[in-house]
Formats: sequence, C-alpha cells, structure tokens
Amino acid sequence: MYDPNPLKTMSEQSALDELQGFLEKEIPMYLQMGIRIDQYGPDGLTMQLPLKPNRNHHQTAFAGSLNALCTMAGWGMTYLLLQELGRDGKIVIQRSSIRYHTPVKTAEVFARCEPIADESKAFFLEMLDEKDQTKLDLKVEVPGTSRPAVAFEGSYVVIARG
Amino acid sequence: MYDPNPLKTMSEQSALDELQGFLEKEIPMYLQMGIRIDQYGPDGLTMQLPLKPNRNHHQTAFAGSLNALCTMAGWGMTYLLLQELGRDGKIVIQRSSIRYHTPVKTAEVFARCEPIADESKAFFLEMLDEKDQTKLDLKVEVPGTSRPAVAFEGSYVVIARG
Repeated sequence: MYDPNPLKTMSEQSALDELQGFLEKEIPMYLQMGIRIDQYGPDGLTMQLPLKPNRNHHQTAFAGSLNALCTMAGWGMTYLLLQELGRDGKIVIQRSSIRYHTPVKTAEVFARCEPIADESKAFFLEMLDEKDQTKLDLKVEVPGTSRPAVAFEGSYVVIARG
Repeated sequence: MYDPNPLKTMSEQSALDELQGFLEKEIPMYLQMGIRIDQYGPDGLTMQLPLKPNRNHHQTAFAGSLNALCTMAGWGMTYLLLQELGRDGKIVIQRSSIRYHTPVKTAEVFARCEPIADESKAFFLEMLDEKDQTKLDLKVEVPGTSRPAVAFEGSYVVIARG
C-alpha cells in the first residue's frame, strides 16, 4: 500500500545524484545535448538544456531537442518515483504527444514535469506489485510568456524487476 | 494550381543536396546525432542515424533521438515539397504524436516519411497561395519486424515568404 510519507531509503538529493550519474553514463545524448537536472521538489522535476547546440535556423530551440528534453524529464520523474517507493523496474516510454505553441528562444531551455498526485502514486504502486507492470501518464511543459511554449504528455510503462 | 508533373526548377538530387547542406549547417543536432539522408523517391523520404551515439541503457535507440529523426524526416519532406512546387516558406512543426511499439536495436536506424498524395499537394499549394499559410500532416515510421517499431504523425505549418 502506498504511504504518502514513507521513510525514504535514500535522500532526495542522493536519488537525484544517482539519476544524473545514470543519465550521464547511459544516455550519450544527455551529455551531447547538454541536458542537466535543474531542480526537484514539490513543483516536480525540471531539466534544462542550452539553446546554442540545440538551436535551429531560426535561432530558436529545435523541436527534436525540445521533445528529447521533455521525454527525459518524464523518464526522470518515473525513475525518482521508483526510488521513492523503494522499487526497481524497467522504464519505457510507450507514447507521447507534443504541441509546440510558441518558439523557445531563451539561452537556457527549461522543461518541468508536473508532480505526481498521491492517488496516482498509489495506483502506480498497486499495479506494479499486483501485476508486475504499471503505467504513469505525465505532463511536461516548457514555460512561455503567457501560456506554455511547449506542452508534452507521455505515457511511461514500468516492468517490475528482481 | 497544382500540376502533378511540373517542370522542376532543380533536379531532385540538387534539392536533396541543398536540404542536406542546410541541415548540416543550420541544425547542430543533425550532425551531433549523426543523421543522414538515406533516400528520396516514390516511397518518400528516408533518413537514418547510427544507434551507438543515440542509444539508451538497454542498448536500443533513445526515444528522444527517434523522435528527433522522425521530426526531421517530416520537416525535410515539407522542405522538398516546397522546392518541387517552386515556393519559399518558413516551416514550423506545430504538433506531433508518437508511439514506440517495439525497441529499435539495429546499428543504423531508419525513419521513412511517407510520400505526399497529389491531392494533398494540391490543397497545400492552394492554401499557401491563397492564405499565405498552409499545413501538411505527415506520417513517419521506423520499420520493425512485423509492424512499425515506431509510428509518428506530425503537423507542419508553412508560412509564405517573399
């Protein structure tokens, strides 16, 4: 059963360090694109990348880089949830959709994965423990001036391990 | 009016060379990911990238790279259509959706944008000339063993220039 205030097996900071080390080592495009973790807390998980190597010919962010950043923010959120719940699993993105509302032209580009509601965590854990497979639907946004510049939705499947 | 057999202002090969030169120069991630144009003809436009720099920790293709490859194949198809029609315009992807059906583990990863039907070309051109703005919905697939490993749909907007 999901306890919203579990005794964590590792601190949030060390979970973040582990996530960062994992991505640096295992996903070459994480470093190639210059992706970094910005922050993690009650507002969710924010990752960032520099515009320059990820620009297009309009000097705004290349759609492929924006999508990769959002995909990775959602993947990271799923990874951190597994850590928080003390579970291990293989995380795979199943599908995603993205809307590019306005061009992104800031020197650093941020994408924030929204936090996961307690009831979603509970359902996620229940399915993982009962069926050895579970799913998480996540929303990631690149902020804009009045509304999000980019809105992404991804479905992540987790298959229990060990 | 759209003529399905126009006298081209440049050969398909020189249009392809121009597209490749443009992407190499203007989109740094095109070279970073190792993307190349594979072929262009009646079957559509196929682009490819090498697995190694685009791998994940499962030694299969990173979803972000697959999405970037599909995004670029659709963008390139729109670029080549403008060339074919002798028009100039700013191409922007508006939205896309993608399904990752099966992991992609070939050393070279191919994504094929399906050819554009004559009636779609005619509508595209009519809107461009009448409204100075037009849209193209494109399907791109990464082939798999029995069905596509990845299925992508993107909507590209073109704003007339000059």
